Amino acid sequence: MTTPQEHLVDWLRNAYAMEKQAESMLKAQASRLEHYPKLRERIEQHLQETLSQQQLLETCLDRHDSGPSTIKDMTARIAAFGQSVGGMTMSDEVVKGGISGYVFECTETAVYTTLIAAAKMVGDAETVRCCEQILPQEVEMARWLLTNLPDVVTAYLARSADDRDEAKR
Amino acid sequence: MTTPQEHLVDWLRNAYAMEKQAESMLKAQASRLEHYPKLRERIEQHLQETLSQQQLLETCLDRHDSGPSTIKDMTARIAAFGQSVGGMTMSDEVVKGGISGYVFECTETAVYTTLIAAAKMVGDAETVRCCEQILPQEVEMARWLLTNLPDVVTAYLARSADDRDEAKR
Repeated sequence: MTTPQEHLVDWLRNAYAMEKQAESMLKAQASRLEHYPKLRERIEQHLQETLSQQQLLETCLDRHDSGPSTIKDMTARIAAFGQSVGGMTMSDEVVKGGISGYVFECTETAVYTTLIAAAKMVGDAETVRCCEQILPQEVEMARWLLTNLPDVVTAYLARSADDRDEAKR
Repeated sequence: MTTPQEHLVDWLRNAYAMEKQAESMLKAQASRLEHYPKLRERIEQHLQETLSQQQLLETCLDRHDSGPSTIKDMTARIAAFGQSVGGMTMSDEVVKGGISGYVFECTETAVYTTLIAAAKMVGDAETVRCCEQILPQEVEMARWLLTNLPDVVTAYLARSADDRDEAKR
């Protein structure tokens, strides 16, 4: 038997691992994007949001008395999560990066939707509040990336046809 | 140098591989979902849409004279894509299945958005038409899955607390 609270804490840990992964991905993407300044600027803005989200999740985990043993567990989760999205994130091509960035934001959207439902069931109003603060940031980042994807595709194809190596970045 | 048309054909092949993967995932999910009839019914509906989408993509590939050598290439792509999403799809838990199903539909949304931009640049009006027919189906499936995710979470947590094994399916 697993109680709703145990599931909630488990999913909060997953969300924390996910935001650590997001931090790595966003930093890597921002450092690579030389020729797409608008995309880079938006990614750097979302990196700051991501760092704040990590702090919010830490307060939620603290309130559930998630002790030191959690840290080790989290590291393993981060590694596993990194492997599962590795195929998407290892590409240096801006179009695949744009798609995988959008997909990552959608994953986060689904995870916070799950957490809000679970926290409501457990009666953890503070976690509901934190996740309802984070969720619109993920939704907006996803919307921005999808809206700008056609421009990224068109710019990439034009540069690529010109045989310029830097098209990919 | 890679021409926009070469990129377009490459991305069409990826999309075809993706829809083959979608077919496998949707079939596996539908056969597992014993206790979530509404979700199962929607997945079965989307499976039919997915089979039609494969046919549309085949006509697009045919028009670009994508010959027999493509098939082998596609099989490798399908395997690679399956591996990259494997971590998400191998779970038999309905909540993770709901999240990964939503994420998969978002991936498809981004891929068809990319294809439409590329096909417009190449002047391939027929591929634009096909992809604009498919895209709303993916958007609607994603929307449906996200909207219904809280109900799935609540039902799963209630069943899980009752210590019923079948909660997971």
